[in-house]
Amino acid sequence: MVKTHKTHVPLGEAWELMRGAYNEGLFSRADRKVLRDTQDASGSILAAPVIAKNNIPHYHASAVDGFAFKAAESIGATPGKPKSLGPSQYQWVNTGSPIPELFNTVVMVEDISYGENTKTILIHEPVHPWEHIRTIGEDTSKGNLLGREREMVTPEMACLFLAAGISSVEVLRPLQITYIPTGEELLSPQAWLSSIPSPGKVVNTNSLLVEKTLLPWGVSVHLSPSVNDSAQDIGKAILKALENSDIILVGAGTAKGKRDHTLEILENLGTVLFQGVRTKPGRPAILGAIKGTPVLGLPGFPMSTLVTLWGLLYPLITLMKTGFFEGTAFLESLFPRGKKKTVLLTPYSSSRGVLEWLRVRTVSIDDTLYALPLRSGSSSLRSMAEAEGIAVLPEEAYELQKNDPLDVWIKKESLGTAKILYQGSNDPGIDLIQGRIPCYGAELLVRSSGSLGGLAALKRNEAHLGATHLVDPETGEYNTPFIEQLELKNMFRTILYWRSQGIIVASGNPLGIKTIEDFSREEISIVNRQVGTGTRSLLDMLLKKHRISPGEIRGYEYLCSGHVHGAAMIAGGEIQAMIGIKAAADFFSLDFIPLCEEPFEILIPQRHMSHPGIRAFLKTTEDPQWRSAVDRLGGYRWSS
Amino acid sequence: MVKTHKTHVPLGEAWELMRGAYNEGLFSRADRKVLRDTQDASGSILAAPVIAKNNIPHYHASAVDGFAFKAAESIGATPGKPKSLGPSQYQWVNTGSPIPELFNTVVMVEDISYGENTKTILIHEPVHPWEHIRTIGEDTSKGNLLGREREMVTPEMACLFLAAGISSVEVLRPLQITYIPTGEELLSPQAWLSSIPSPGKVVNTNSLLVEKTLLPWGVSVHLSPSVNDSAQDIGKAILKALENSDIILVGAGTAKGKRDHTLEILENLGTVLFQGVRTKPGRPAILGAIKGTPVLGLPGFPMSTLVTLWGLLYPLITLMKTGFFEGTAFLESLFPRGKKKTVLLTPYSSSRGVLEWLRVRTVSIDDTLYALPLRSGSSSLRSMAEAEGIAVLPEEAYELQKNDPLDVWIKKESLGTAKILYQGSNDPGIDLIQGRIPCYGAELLVRSSGSLGGLAALKRNEAHLGATHLVDPETGEYNTPFIEQLELKNMFRTILYWRSQGIIVASGNPLGIKTIEDFSREEISIVNRQVGTGTRSLLDMLLKKHRISPGEIRGYEYLCSGHVHGAAMIAGGEIQAMIGIKAAADFFSLDFIPLCEEPFEILIPQRHMSHPGIRAFLKTTEDPQWRSAVDRLGGYRWSS
Repeated sequence: MVKTHKTHVPLGEAWELMRGAYNEGLFSRADRKVLRDTQDASGSILAAPVIAKNNIPHYHASAVDGFAFKAAESIGATPGKPKSLGPSQYQWVNTGSPIPELFNTVVMVEDISYGENTKTILIHEPVHPWEHIRTIGEDTSKGNLLGREREMVTPEMACLFLAAGISSVEVLRPLQITYIPTGEELLSPQAWLSSIPSPGKVVNTNSLLVEKTLLPWGVSVHLSPSVNDSAQDIGKAILKALENSDIILVGAGTAKGKRDHTLEILENLGTVLFQGVRTKPGRPAILGAIKGTPVLGLPGFPMSTLVTLWGLLYPLITLMKTGFFEGTAFLESLFPRGKKKTVLLTPYSSSRGVLEWLRVRTVSIDDTLYALPLRSGSSSLRSMAEAEGIAVLPEEAYELQKNDPLDVWIKKESLGTAKILYQGSNDPGIDLIQGRIPCYGAELLVRSSGSLGGLAALKRNEAHLGATHLVDPETGEYNTPFIEQLELKNMFRTILYWRSQGIIVASGNPLGIKTIEDFSREEISIVNRQVGTGTRSLLDMLLKKHRISPGEIRGYEYLCSGHVHGAAMIAGGEIQAMIGIKAAADFFSLDFIPLCEEPFEILIPQRHMSHPGIRAFLKTTEDPQWRSAVDRLGGYRWSS
Repeated sequence: MVKTHKTHVPLGEAWELMRGAYNEGLFSRADRKVLRDTQDASGSILAAPVIAKNNIPHYHASAVDGFAFKAAESIGATPGKPKSLGPSQYQWVNTGSPIPELFNTVVMVEDISYGENTKTILIHEPVHPWEHIRTIGEDTSKGNLLGREREMVTPEMACLFLAAGISSVEVLRPLQITYIPTGEELLSPQAWLSSIPSPGKVVNTNSLLVEKTLLPWGVSVHLSPSVNDSAQDIGKAILKALENSDIILVGAGTAKGKRDHTLEILENLGTVLFQGVRTKPGRPAILGAIKGTPVLGLPGFPMSTLVTLWGLLYPLITLMKTGFFEGTAFLESLFPRGKKKTVLLTPYSSSRGVLEWLRVRTVSIDDTLYALPLRSGSSSLRSMAEAEGIAVLPEEAYELQKNDPLDVWIKKESLGTAKILYQGSNDPGIDLIQGRIPCYGAELLVRSSGSLGGLAALKRNEAHLGATHLVDPETGEYNTPFIEQLELKNMFRTILYWRSQGIIVASGNPLGIKTIEDFSREEISIVNRQVGTGTRSLLDMLLKKHRISPGEIRGYEYLCSGHVHGAAMIAGGEIQAMIGIKAAADFFSLDFIPLCEEPFEILIPQRHMSHPGIRAFLKTTEDPQWRSAVDRLGGYRWSS
């Protein structure tokens, strides 16, 4: 058995190898045609052309409500000298009624009048033969082509087939795909949800992801129970799956670690086509075949799994269904919502030589549709779930600049057209607006870019609104000095609420932290926020006041993504203290030492005030349900 | 009970009335929230925001395969002077393993070397604390917003919810919709297919259409058995449906004919909002409410049913699900494949003051995407099934010109990108290519525009290929004189086959028709083809030869759409004779009197010869399966 195989191939080469294997018969082509009742055929792919058996209509049918008669009897009729027809010369027909054999035309009931009594009708102008009649075969004649080989049956087509007398159609049997999750660390959703999971255990979400992703692809999915990381057990599961699978997927175990067995199994039981694909994420994918059945090894992280389904499984399915696929044309059917032309809101570094599946969100500001790249870690379930679309960055792309054009394949429907972008300070109250604003017909995109970042974004017209709580270290004045310095004009300004800022420490304050001066103690490590955030500027002001240099503080350069994330770090024992808002401390039942109350101020350019999304935002800030949710957070005081 | 209601309202006013009724509580708003297991929630609409219960990850997890240790122990390490760690100072971790409590960083296995033995590892440079560790809450912190109210759950979101400890989510219960088909003429598909249906009976395809169209809209559909055209029976069926329906649909019976009862029922049992909508098709739609449940009367023709589902039911569902909808924005989600900008290939007359749902097919020629309007009869199942997209022509549109821009909502997926347009002579053999060419990766669009029409289309660059069988009445020469006259240059020309043309008459030739001269007999009526078709020019040449004037022939001006349609008319007794090809006669077992054999010649502009669709077309003409299907048609002789 030949054991050489390609490694780390570009995606295009992976497709080439796949096509080659298919054409050389490495994947066996079972005869997959089955008969399906026409009524159940919607969504199936035709395996043969469909030809009409009957005429539609199958009889001469009246197209209107009216009277059937002989067209010749109307010759010479004029409004002044109508032709009069007695009861034996006409017959009433409803829409759809057959035309009586003696007659060959129909006059609409609206176009006649009655003679001396309603038994005589008067025709006021000549009527052509076959007028207002749907003649036999007018819509569809016996023998007409109604469906093409390889075409998907729509409900409309199924109706046409039925009417044309076709009781069943030859369709492709859906491909049978088995997914085998592997790894001792996997818990079933039931086990995961029913107890507090121990460290090292994770929930198997990939089975759900695979099943629901494949569903609309017209295949049948079998989910195997999860199998331990043992070559023997996985091998057994694969051999079992061979019995009823056209394609086998093996979850995780595709890399070169101690627990990665897929390569070894493929080498022992079959053939390996390639290991590793030059994509990000999705690098450690493997494709091989055992006894004529393709076996695809999926990398374990959820986003890696997903892009491998997109970039390798979908082309493989297309190939096995249709016998061909070319280039990236499959993206059109993989993402049936199509693609949109966007420009990047922020620069983005991609790796040259690697095709990247970049997750983005999108938002329109004035006439520009912006793409916002999401965090690219393949382990992030959140950015996977939040992504509205995918940009496929080709191998040659690397340093993308702000405003560079980007084609985005749309992955999920937006909630509404009134989508607005917030840039500014990170705040749990704003996050809650995101959850509630759809009830007012809008969608809020939140980009935590810090107080100063928000002001700068407004200045550059890159946000519909922002929020800031920046203190001037000299005067202690909030916000206005910064707004004036940036010459931000024509802004609607409103203080949404006041927030309590303070020192967040572990529950019970075991290290006895009291003031900012404790931050310089050896045993204390903090987490900070990025430059330009209000919270960092507050820390800087306090340090200056107490004449402490940032260099004396462990963790000053260590950043978290927001108040709640920092508080989670304290709860997890990773750090001992931070500056943050009371709401975040309350979240994890941490101790909170208040330092000050700060105005959380919303800024909206006047010209966006009529935007339906902004109108919905302002309505939501009055919403009692949202307000009480904010109250429950703790540490907020309403300014009005 | 107030019995006044609006009639024949523009669609926008229909929506306004619907919104008004909803806001005034005429449609009762049952509490429709239900809990759904997270694993089954994909596709459901959230009824409340979803907030993370757990951190993801819920423990500090290694992001790589490597060694966990204390970051401080690596301070000062250099490649020349590595730090050495003994077995108690490190621990092996797999990707996903928890970080042992003593340690706070991870070095990748690729980045270390071993000391004297594999029990000692050497670190070659300082490692930051928390490097290669996915810290608690890094992906998602407890309290983060994961799903917004009114948002549809995707499989990716369901995975995120599960991982964040959410076992079930509050979603909107799917709306329950009941469809009641009415009419004595309706046969069930089983009854329809199991016998030869009598004139006047038709198959009930609307139940299938309604069910399958509504399926992807996230609603539950109940199909009632069909009910006779009696106000009492229909009323009973509606009252029964009230028990478990959020919306009731009544099929047909919405017009003002003798068998139309929906209006009367609504007036007696509830309220009518409007009767009649200014759209084409779909005019006779009715909306009302009985006991808080909206009742929508659907016109009976299939295409009218479909556009009423699109234009009235979908907005009604949106309204009842979300509480609002505005303008035509719903088209975006109704047609998730989006819209394409096209230009009209042919002029199109729409009625001013009426919104029209125009069915089209599309094809790209060079860089222009053309829309081809399909026959607009609302009774046509075929154009409904063939439509690739829908152009919504607003009330103010009427005479659309060739090359006018047209936005087309894409309705069904095309088979491939290699789509080509044929314009020219009507021919069953070409129809068969349509059915087979998808196996060669292309799609063929056939527009029967006649031999001369095809040549003219090629001249105007409005087709990828054409076919002609035009005879010069003076010389009897085929094709070339016409091609030269139009100055068609750089054409690839090939005779596909020879076709037998002749006189088609009823089976057994009861009228004893022998030659073209019989066409002038009183009892004989024929059907002709449009000007510019090869078959019409053949008839003209024969008439000229026999010195017969067209005026002497009944039906000379009566047109059919093609050979097979004409033959169906003879089979149906509508006409007695026609000029046509043998294949069409054979189809209906009609008699055929041969007149001549003509060359059926394909023309392809040289610059399209490399188009993958043309390459597929030429391959298909060599395909043995297609060739034997043509042989079975009869009357064809291969030229090579």
